[in-house]
Amino acid sequence: MDKLEEEVNDFALWLIAKQQPVATDLRRIIAAIKIAGDIERIADLAVNVAKACIRIGGEPFVIDIRSLVSMHQLAADMVSAAMTAYDREDASLAAQIADMDRQVDERYGEMMRALLEMEKTDKEALAQMNVLALVARYIERTADHATNIAEHLLYLVKGKHYDLND
Amino acid sequence: MDKLEEEVNDFALWLIAKQQPVATDLRRIIAAIKIAGDIERIADLAVNVAKACIRIGGEPFVIDIRSLVSMHQLAADMVSAAMTAYDREDASLAAQIADMDRQVDERYGEMMRALLEMEKTDKEALAQMNVLALVARYIERTADHATNIAEHLLYLVKGKHYDLND
Repeated sequence: MDKLEEEVNDFALWLIAKQQPVATDLRRIIAAIKIAGDIERIADLAVNVAKACIRIGGEPFVIDIRSLVSMHQLAADMVSAAMTAYDREDASLAAQIADMDRQVDERYGEMMRALLEMEKTDKEALAQMNVLALVARYIERTADHATNIAEHLLYLVKGKHYDLND
Repeated sequence: MDKLEEEVNDFALWLIAKQQPVATDLRRIIAAIKIAGDIERIADLAVNVAKACIRIGGEPFVIDIRSLVSMHQLAADMVSAAMTAYDREDASLAAQIADMDRQVDERYGEMMRALLEMEKTDKEALAQMNVLALVARYIERTADHATNIAEHLLYLVKGKHYDLND
């Protein structure tokens, strides 16, 4: 992924230098550079989640992880919606991603409350709670990066800056 | 801050279109666009921290917040080091920022463990624990954005991509 991002950047610089693009194309190239950065971070976060899963292994979960599962599904949907929106330069789909992000943030809040409200318990359960808190954070950040992609796209399509991460 | 970021982007596009810069200058402009994005996010996070402080108000803290205070100091130092490093295009200062980020991540872990290990307690204490968990996350992300700035700078100075956020 790191290498692919570099390739996008180098190609973008080459395009700008050699083709001397006009305003709209320039915006398109700069959006591509920013989006490549977000995709690279999403890939890093996926690696972090995978490592956390290995740490939990076959242990039974110490809390109800439905909020986490629902966050994960939403975040995965957001990433593919962001890719589709970019592909089609679809501003209304990009706006929907912001709504999904709000739902992810709600699930994140629920999950953290559930963890904080748990009775103080044994060392192993605490270790798992810590890992679950990390996973929730990684997923929430994945959703943020999908929202960033939607913002870059809106900037590209509408020519002004949007902040959907609110 | 949003408006300032837009100004940086528009000025960068104008520079690219009118001046047709060569490779190094192009990199410099693209680094400026990316760094402006990180600074804008840091400002958003500062607003979030301020709102959280208002929510806690004059309540006594339910846990020892030394880790949080130390995170905050480190993150603030990282942001100003990132600005200095950018100003001087100083690669070795940029590399130090990554070390500081690792310390912030450690403090964040300590803080989350302290929150999760707390005895289940009354509703008000839980509400404050929730806010403290959020503040810790905002500060940790501020430190990540300072690290991103250091990365963009290393890309600019050394001409290749670095991932310091590991």
